[in-house]
Amino acid sequence: MNPENIITLTTDFGYEDGYVGVVKGVILKICPAARTVDLSHEIQPWNISAASWIVSNSFSYFPKGAVHVAVVDPGVGTKRRFLLLEALDSFFIGPDNGIFSGIVSMADGNVKAYELTASEYWLPELSTSFHARDVFAPVAAHFVGGVPVEKLGNEISPESLVHLPIRELRTKEGRLEGSVVYVDRFGNLITNIKRDLVKVASLCQVGKRSIGRIGQTYASAEQGAPVAFVGSHGYLEIAVSQGRADEKLDAGVNTPVILFQSTTAPTSS
Amino acid sequence: MNPENIITLTTDFGYEDGYVGVVKGVILKICPAARTVDLSHEIQPWNISAASWIVSNSFSYFPKGAVHVAVVDPGVGTKRRFLLLEALDSFFIGPDNGIFSGIVSMADGNVKAYELTASEYWLPELSTSFHARDVFAPVAAHFVGGVPVEKLGNEISPESLVHLPIRELRTKEGRLEGSVVYVDRFGNLITNIKRDLVKVASLCQVGKRSIGRIGQTYASAEQGAPVAFVGSHGYLEIAVSQGRADEKLDAGVNTPVILFQSTTAPTSS
Amino acid sequence: MNPENIITLTTDFGYEDGYVGVVKGVILKICPAARTVDLSHEIQPWNISAASWIVSNSFSYFPKGAVHVAVVDPGVGTKRRFLLLEALDSFFIGPDNGIFSGIVSMADGNVKAYELTASEYWLPELSTSFHARDVFAPVAAHFVGGVPVEKLGNEISPESLVHLPIRELRTKEGRLEGSVVYVDRFGNLITNIKRDLVKVASLCQVGKRSIGRIGQTYASAEQGAPVAFVGSHGYLEIAVSQGRADEKLDAGVNTPVILFQSTTAPTSS
Repeated sequence: MNPENIITLTTDFGYEDGYVGVVKGVILKICPAARTVDLSHEIQPWNISAASWIVSNSFSYFPKGAVHVAVVDPGVGTKRRFLLLEALDSFFIGPDNGIFSGIVSMADGNVKAYELTASEYWLPELSTSFHARDVFAPVAAHFVGGVPVEKLGNEISPESLVHLPIRELRTKEGRLEGSVVYVDRFGNLITNIKRDLVKVASLCQVGKRSIGRIGQTYASAEQGAPVAFVGSHGYLEIAVSQGRADEKLDAGVNTPVILFQSTTAPTSS
Repeated sequence: MNPENIITLTTDFGYEDGYVGVVKGVILKICPAARTVDLSHEIQPWNISAASWIVSNSFSYFPKGAVHVAVVDPGVGTKRRFLLLEALDSFFIGPDNGIFSGIVSMADGNVKAYELTASEYWLPELSTSFHARDVFAPVAAHFVGGVPVEKLGNEISPESLVHLPIRELRTKEGRLEGSVVYVDRFGNLITNIKRDLVKVASLCQVGKRSIGRIGQTYASAEQGAPVAFVGSHGYLEIAVSQGRADEKLDAGVNTPVILFQSTTAPTSS
Repeated sequence: MNPENIITLTTDFGYEDGYVGVVKGVILKICPAARTVDLSHEIQPWNISAASWIVSNSFSYFPKGAVHVAVVDPGVGTKRRFLLLEALDSFFIGPDNGIFSGIVSMADGNVKAYELTASEYWLPELSTSFHARDVFAPVAAHFVGGVPVEKLGNEISPESLVHLPIRELRTKEGRLEGSVVYVDRFGNLITNIKRDLVKVASLCQVGKRSIGRIGQTYASAEQGAPVAFVGSHGYLEIAVSQGRADEKLDAGVNTPVILFQSTTAPTSS
């Protein structure tokens, strides 16, 4: 299922302290054939939601059967379960704190969930603050190395998993209201409004600011002006050509984004 | 030509959003034998010139035949060509926006250029904002995997490539005037004055500030004092021992750097 | 001894300039079978002590025989020796400036030290400012590729190695005084007080601030309150649940950390 032995890593550990290197050392020591790929280690500390977004929007570009380890874990050391999920032709390993909410939501019920309980596949000493090293990395390595999931833990009900609050879309009289769910390095505002809900003629509003009609690319607008378009993730995205949309529009995660059919557009902005 | 299947990556994507990981996933999915190496993903957004400098000064340390993908692409989504260049026993893949100006200049005419047109080697859906994922990564992977360049696109004239403006050296009466072309993490000022133009007895001036005679190492000067020497890239470089030359000298990219033969040195500094 | 051909890298080079990529290129060109793993490249420039701490606390998670290259080198270009150490079933390559002080101290005399002198295993041209590229990377690659250490240099006395000043623990009348030796990305304060010296009933003081009794996990304290516990490195660590201990306690490297047996606790804080 994972002939390339790929393990992706998503954490808030940063690159400065050697923590990510140690996780890779643990993996290579157990499974020399494993190949790790970093998705991100610069997630804002304890931002589970950002990690969930990155994993959900990245995993499908990897070979089927790849193992995706994600650890943003403010509750480390307290009682929360260690998970392995099978969904969408992929595997996901991390704490049961909502970090795989996006995956579970995309899988639409087709999820097998396991609680990792077999401590013989963990490092011998369990710290209270670094379970990526002590639990998740060794389990991922053993799993890639061929240990079947049944040996690693027990199947549990997917309904029992912790979920992050879902940001719902609201529709009313030709208005579609979503929100910004992620702001990337470039300051681009990525929303939860999917491609198929975006009509080219729509007018877009971010917070209280009108952006105009849906465009095509960063470069559709003149430099410095905001533009709304379907971004590379398949969601409505607001950017500023060679500038930062978050600063220009004073917007961030949770800022409302509204699409108006042209007949229902506000009279002024 | 590339027995190690090496693909280097140079972008302004940063490490926080998972974009680089996705690029690697696309590559590994198409060509499991590929080995990616990051040159930099922390290039200042849209700074094509810095990317060009990094690729030009790094590629030769890799095995012959390695593939170097560089994507800093403010014009993504607009009409600009997708390129594969063969030069200097290496291959280069990226947008036609001058990002390989340094390579083309070093190759001194010995360049074969191809426009990538065969969309069957791209991802099935082409976004308007992430061509590294949709075009450049898949092409690099197919190329490393053995697809010949003739299948990937059409040969074009190297003369037709977009070039960045060249910073020329000027010489006059024993004065050699160049400029800072790159400032690195340490604040070191790297110029476009090559090793063989630097004479040990010369006096060096950065902006309006005299640095004194050309020294040998960071540690030739006392701590905190600036020193000019031939740096590891083979160019005149100005540094401050355990300090930042850019801040100390209020200098940056494009700051003039002048070498005087001793007989023509300015009378005061 | 190193069947996985692992070479870890620890530097202060950062990720933006391509320097780390070049080091990997040099390694792969000499030894295609080598596998590099980054420990950290975001060490504060010239902070040898932080590099020493990271290497000491990370190497044991890698397979036996792995080669650990560490280069934080403010004296680059001056006379200091190039080292290869064999200790603790591992190999260490870098400058003789104290960067392996932590390793030498842990090895407790069981160290073999070599000065790298055989320039035929370096790059042909030696710069004055990038010995990671010109010396340490090629030597690591040749060593992993099978060149015996005797060919790379000469054995020297471990007593002759440069050492960083050691931060001693002091004990007096039920007081144990150590200090902060590392502050990580999360602002956690990691001390030099080992696990076996920490008693659960002890009171902990950081600088002039009392932290209370030793707890178990980040989450033992309420959010925003400091907590002292044995961290994942095996040392007393002070953290703030979902906050930064360094800022909250106005503490950093060298801040004193004192443990009191309960009977000797100060009467107020």
